[in-house]
Amino acid sequence: MKNTARIPQTFLLTFLTLLLVGNTAISQTKEKDSTMLRNIYDMALLNGKAYDWLDYLSNEIGGRLSGSLNAQRAVEYTEAELKKLGLDKVWLQPVMVPKWTRGPQEQAYIETSPGITTQANICALGGSVPTPALGLKAEVIEVQGLDDLARYGKDQIEGKIVFYNRPMQADLINTFEAYGGCVDQRYAGAMEAAKYGAVGIVVRSMTLSNDDLPHTGSMSYGETPPDQRIPACAISTKDADYLSSALSLKPDLKFYFKQRCKTYDDVQSYNVIGEITGSTYPNRYMIVGGHLDSWDLGDGSHDDGAGCVQSMEVLRIFKEVNYKPKHSIRVVLFMNEENGLRGGRKYAEEAKLKNEQHVFALESDAGGFTPRGFSFDTDTENFEQIESWKPLFEPYLIHYFERGGSGADIGPLKDDKIVLAGLRPDSQRYFDHHHAASDTFDAVNKRELELGAATMASLVYLMDTYGTTSEVGEVKD
Amino acid sequence: MKNTARIPQTFLLTFLTLLLVGNTAISQTKEKDSTMLRNIYDMALLNGKAYDWLDYLSNEIGGRLSGSLNAQRAVEYTEAELKKLGLDKVWLQPVMVPKWTRGPQEQAYIETSPGITTQANICALGGSVPTPALGLKAEVIEVQGLDDLARYGKDQIEGKIVFYNRPMQADLINTFEAYGGCVDQRYAGAMEAAKYGAVGIVVRSMTLSNDDLPHTGSMSYGETPPDQRIPACAISTKDADYLSSALSLKPDLKFYFKQRCKTYDDVQSYNVIGEITGSTYPNRYMIVGGHLDSWDLGDGSHDDGAGCVQSMEVLRIFKEVNYKPKHSIRVVLFMNEENGLRGGRKYAEEAKLKNEQHVFALESDAGGFTPRGFSFDTDTENFEQIESWKPLFEPYLIHYFERGGSGADIGPLKDDKIVLAGLRPDSQRYFDHHHAASDTFDAVNKRELELGAATMASLVYLMDTYGTTSEVGEVKD
Repeated sequence: MKNTARIPQTFLLTFLTLLLVGNTAISQTKEKDSTMLRNIYDMALLNGKAYDWLDYLSNEIGGRLSGSLNAQRAVEYTEAELKKLGLDKVWLQPVMVPKWTRGPQEQAYIETSPGITTQANICALGGSVPTPALGLKAEVIEVQGLDDLARYGKDQIEGKIVFYNRPMQADLINTFEAYGGCVDQRYAGAMEAAKYGAVGIVVRSMTLSNDDLPHTGSMSYGETPPDQRIPACAISTKDADYLSSALSLKPDLKFYFKQRCKTYDDVQSYNVIGEITGSTYPNRYMIVGGHLDSWDLGDGSHDDGAGCVQSMEVLRIFKEVNYKPKHSIRVVLFMNEENGLRGGRKYAEEAKLKNEQHVFALESDAGGFTPRGFSFDTDTENFEQIESWKPLFEPYLIHYFERGGSGADIGPLKDDKIVLAGLRPDSQRYFDHHHAASDTFDAVNKRELELGAATMASLVYLMDTYGTTSEVGEVKD
Repeated sequence: MKNTARIPQTFLLTFLTLLLVGNTAISQTKEKDSTMLRNIYDMALLNGKAYDWLDYLSNEIGGRLSGSLNAQRAVEYTEAELKKLGLDKVWLQPVMVPKWTRGPQEQAYIETSPGITTQANICALGGSVPTPALGLKAEVIEVQGLDDLARYGKDQIEGKIVFYNRPMQADLINTFEAYGGCVDQRYAGAMEAAKYGAVGIVVRSMTLSNDDLPHTGSMSYGETPPDQRIPACAISTKDADYLSSALSLKPDLKFYFKQRCKTYDDVQSYNVIGEITGSTYPNRYMIVGGHLDSWDLGDGSHDDGAGCVQSMEVLRIFKEVNYKPKHSIRVVLFMNEENGLRGGRKYAEEAKLKNEQHVFALESDAGGFTPRGFSFDTDTENFEQIESWKPLFEPYLIHYFERGGSGADIGPLKDDKIVLAGLRPDSQRYFDHHHAASDTFDAVNKRELELGAATMASLVYLMDTYGTTSEVGEVKD
């Protein structure tokens, strides 16, 4: 109190007045935002469209492997649905994509003695070459990862099938970390094993579930010359355990598999894009997206039908609640995330060519489960602004705001200004379904899907309202 | 800096030394706790037993309605399993429970014109009287809740079936709130409608899912004399919508239902209890539990097989990691939560009779889904201590610590000192399964169940280590 007395009364009054006015303005803004979020969640939960869209994508179309007829059907369906929303623009962005087909159901067995066989559940890895027409049979060497190859050397590997059997770590809370810790076996297993003269590889499926489903996924031969490429398949976790156990009793057992997969020339496909043009910054873009292609074993409901319909729902909600964004907001349904990322690359290329300033991109590609928050690829200043919005999300139990990855398709947009973000749903069940026949519509809960869409729309709304800290103050348009 | 100079150097040094020693002690404690939590989660996720136990309870035993043979099988199975854990004591606590049986599959149809009928999916509410042997057919009056009865009055209700059709609110994020907002229709619908001369009631199933499954649950006739009790059933949400729509076109349509349920005399049953006796405070009790009985339509996996096996897992983990609690820790598998709460009442009664000082009770009875945190029924001081542990739970994405309800079975233990708590899993899918034929083992994810058990064990560990603030400083033993 003594110190205060030294400050001139007029100054103090002015200061206090400013403080009060400021506080009122802040609390009014906060109330406006809080009301807007409530409206967004209500729209998603009471009058949502995401679940119906997903029903169609999953049950009327099905798996949407790049270059397939189904992928094209999905392009046409989502374009038509976006056109119904009254957006300012809807268009297709052409992109050439790889075309790989699985062929007839793969076959495999474990032969412990001549003629004594046990069937195994396998599937070809995406991009694999086929086996010989009558299949491939060879002895097996089990390894725990790529590093083991050098340890065993050509002597022990040549002429054999390499069986990569390092499981996902069940003690990691974030299952994506567990996946990240194993997926090198699937991605690089064939190209590395070929260097040691292996004739094929079998990879333990990337899942924490103990079941009979093989999980496919992308692989690469890197610089391996075509004539040295060896076929690669995934085996279910139960059969991987069986194979490992059988090997310990019978190290000279043989594994047989047959797959007739085939790679064709690239074909024409499309990213599907819709836009609400910004009222204040029409030339600054914020995008929200998922990928329209999927693997072929299931119907791609979680990966990534969910992300597509949630992204479409963000723009639908904005139209329904009559929100007119300052920035141009685009939904982008990327083609070919799974085996090429061509759609993501194409979108970024064209954005650069056209000098479109992208300030924010949000992807949903981690399943349609209860949303927990977001991860961000951005600088400290932007992250601090985002963290200041946490209280607005609390009523919706959204609590996870971390720096880290964002999404594969939006990765190519990365520069020093754009804020990249990924929706982070609960991850516990994701790898039960990922790339397997169990990635189906019935595994998606309507409310969980809708909450994800609302959570995305809320973040886009806040980013649009306050801008990224990288753009604030700039006048570029 | 000027002020500091006035403080004697020796005092300052002592103070700083104390501060450093204190900090080291605190950080060592923190590290010890953090390591313990990691061990607990590892044990649950890498060597868990909860899922296997649940598999047996659900698939080998099945629905465990109070007084049924299955309930008794569950008592014997869990007692035997607890005995294998090397606890200090395992015993059965006798309790008399109601016995109500559903009888043969219920039947129902909507008759829009004589002979023109559409079948409806219904089930008797737990505790309902039967219809007449050949069923009951009457006109229907649709209401949105108990309050509507007075509005329509005896004139419009007498001789009719009252159809309670207020749905659960989909815009509430916590689905238990939505349930709480509707369940009065199920619980008190029959006793209230009887006052206006209704001949039966049909209640919209308590679920947010739009499907064909009727959801049962407890109801009460209150003081209604036996000869004035009217039969009560639940109807699936799809059929509720159909009935409502048909009524708007044909207000004089008739609804028929037949159910042969029956109430018997009370029978003997048991709470199943296991204990690790405390090393420091053997006469202070901390309990963790769920309820062993379930409804009969599904196998009671989520409600509340999950809570039972998670509670058993807490004590198993303590034994496995060789943790010797200061307090006596009990697992209590309560009988008859669903239609009587006799087990919970009995346990509290006996605790009082024996003057057992219960300082903490934790219940899991909200499904085996990904845990988000806990709700607590306690005073500010205890809640503040609990909140100080939040950082320890962050690596496990446990973020929800709120004051509110705890669990039905532990409610009767409430006094001014005990801390009551309830595990709070993600609630989005719970009411898809609750009390319906879809409450089955396949709807439980192994990791989600295990994370719940580890989260419970972590809280019990911290409560045991630091004590409740109500007991700290007391020497009662």
